[in-house]
Amino acid sequence: MEETLQNVSKAAVIGLGSMGWGAALSLLRAGFAVNGCDVRQDVLQRFSQAGGKSCKTPSEAADAADAVFVFVVNSGQAETVLFGPGGALETAGAGTVFLLCTTMAPSATMAIAERLEAAGMLVIDAPVSGGHVKALSGEMVVMGSGSPEAFARAEKALDAVSAKVFRLGDRPGAGSQVKMINQLLAGVHIAVTAEAMTLAAKTGIDLKTLYDVLRVSAGSSWMFENRGEHIVSGDYTPRSAVDIFVKDLGIVASEAERVGAVTPLTATALALFRQASEAGLGKEDDAAVAKLLAERSGVVLPGMGAGS
Amino acid sequence: MEETLQNVSKAAVIGLGSMGWGAALSLLRAGFAVNGCDVRQDVLQRFSQAGGKSCKTPSEAADAADAVFVFVVNSGQAETVLFGPGGALETAGAGTVFLLCTTMAPSATMAIAERLEAAGMLVIDAPVSGGHVKALSGEMVVMGSGSPEAFARAEKALDAVSAKVFRLGDRPGAGSQVKMINQLLAGVHIAVTAEAMTLAAKTGIDLKTLYDVLRVSAGSSWMFENRGEHIVSGDYTPRSAVDIFVKDLGIVASEAERVGAVTPLTATALALFRQASEAGLGKEDDAAVAKLLAERSGVVLPGMGAGS
Repeated sequence: MEETLQNVSKAAVIGLGSMGWGAALSLLRAGFAVNGCDVRQDVLQRFSQAGGKSCKTPSEAADAADAVFVFVVNSGQAETVLFGPGGALETAGAGTVFLLCTTMAPSATMAIAERLEAAGMLVIDAPVSGGHVKALSGEMVVMGSGSPEAFARAEKALDAVSAKVFRLGDRPGAGSQVKMINQLLAGVHIAVTAEAMTLAAKTGIDLKTLYDVLRVSAGSSWMFENRGEHIVSGDYTPRSAVDIFVKDLGIVASEAERVGAVTPLTATALALFRQASEAGLGKEDDAAVAKLLAERSGVVLPGMGAGS
Repeated sequence: MEETLQNVSKAAVIGLGSMGWGAALSLLRAGFAVNGCDVRQDVLQRFSQAGGKSCKTPSEAADAADAVFVFVVNSGQAETVLFGPGGALETAGAGTVFLLCTTMAPSATMAIAERLEAAGMLVIDAPVSGGHVKALSGEMVVMGSGSPEAFARAEKALDAVSAKVFRLGDRPGAGSQVKMINQLLAGVHIAVTAEAMTLAAKTGIDLKTLYDVLRVSAGSSWMFENRGEHIVSGDYTPRSAVDIFVKDLGIVASEAERVGAVTPLTATALALFRQASEAGLGKEDDAAVAKLLAERSGVVLPGMGAGS
């Protein structure tokens, strides 16, 4: 189907971090006109060079957009970019579909969705999974919930950014619930990858060999495959930072406490991420929790340097 | 290549549990004459029906065998079936290759290997991974270490039972080290699968839907895919029992303590498996650690029954 400039759809992406950046580029590739918004000036410059329109405020980004993706870090930021001064609601037209992609507590998602719907907007609770590589290739997994109307409105935009959209219910909240459980698993898997690599190094096992064997064994996980490679190569360039899991496992622990569920592994992993953050590793790749364990274990992992 | 009865190789499998049974059947399928040995009479009967020769003692099983697989539960049993009265060494000829497939502490593996080698035997430290399904199909992963001579002697037998043999070094011990790290990851992954399913059930998420979404998301693991299904269907028929991980994570914790490595997630998961065993779940499938967490969280998982 040929498209003329007149019927090119317009999308906004608020928050051009690891996942938002990938989504924005995927939308550009799919032929959308994309307004991008971020607080970092260098990211906005890169976005303009990539063919997007860089916007100073969420309000400017949401102007005349058919779909607004929210990829900020947490629920507080989401509220600000939506409802604050210069927020998206200042310009968004009635019936605009908002895709809430931030990992938030289910209760926070529901509260934000209600405010948006009260303002005449369509809403999809749309947390994502897959990491920055899948985000860049437009192959994220979306754990979505929202009205059929909202999904219909967002269909083309969701197609552009994802390989698979799970429809988990007709109301915002269900997507966030499932994402929360995903983060519980993912966070513990990252921490245990760090623990396994540390013990292996301490007992004299070659880490590259270990990685090659275990990634195809019953001890493997998506995170072992992904973050294990960061530890083996000593590369802690943040794809997703330690502080993200301080937040996400914090959400899990709060929700577990609220409902009275026993989650000892979450608590143990959360403590490690918090301690790593307090040790100054908060902005490094989340695999850097291995550095904390290695220091405590008296062993030097790749990329640590014997003197550090 | 045609084989006559004269040059059919003879293998022995000592311990016909979940993994040993699969190895023995794979050897039969590959044309080996297989002597099987187990303490359970019903298992021996089934083995005879499957075309194997059932033996009452390891000594009888090892008689004239070219390769002897040891698939007993722990290092104490391994010592007994090898060196005790009625043990394999009573009949094994010099140059017989012993494949030590039991998950043992690296130090225990090395001690046993030394005794076997002193008696003129060849030894491969050969712990396996893959679960009972891969064992049955002859597609286990072997984490092997031992002399080139031992590997040459065992080649045909290893081909029969495995899809992949990693060569991790020329001395027994290296295989057990890598297997130990695999068990660290596997044990924590089972426990966190149980924790995730429990929290999901407590917050009202449909477990089957959750499983379908997360098995293809970044929160997935080999164990989540495998044991998650047991929890969703409430099927705790033991494929591998809770008590196996009481032992295997116990090995990890001891070794970590010995070398001074910090392993908080291992400690947390080990405590859960121990408590599950103390609660009477030791012989159930290892996924039954979920029942412990569910009871403490006041939620009923499939297969638990509201009154239990």
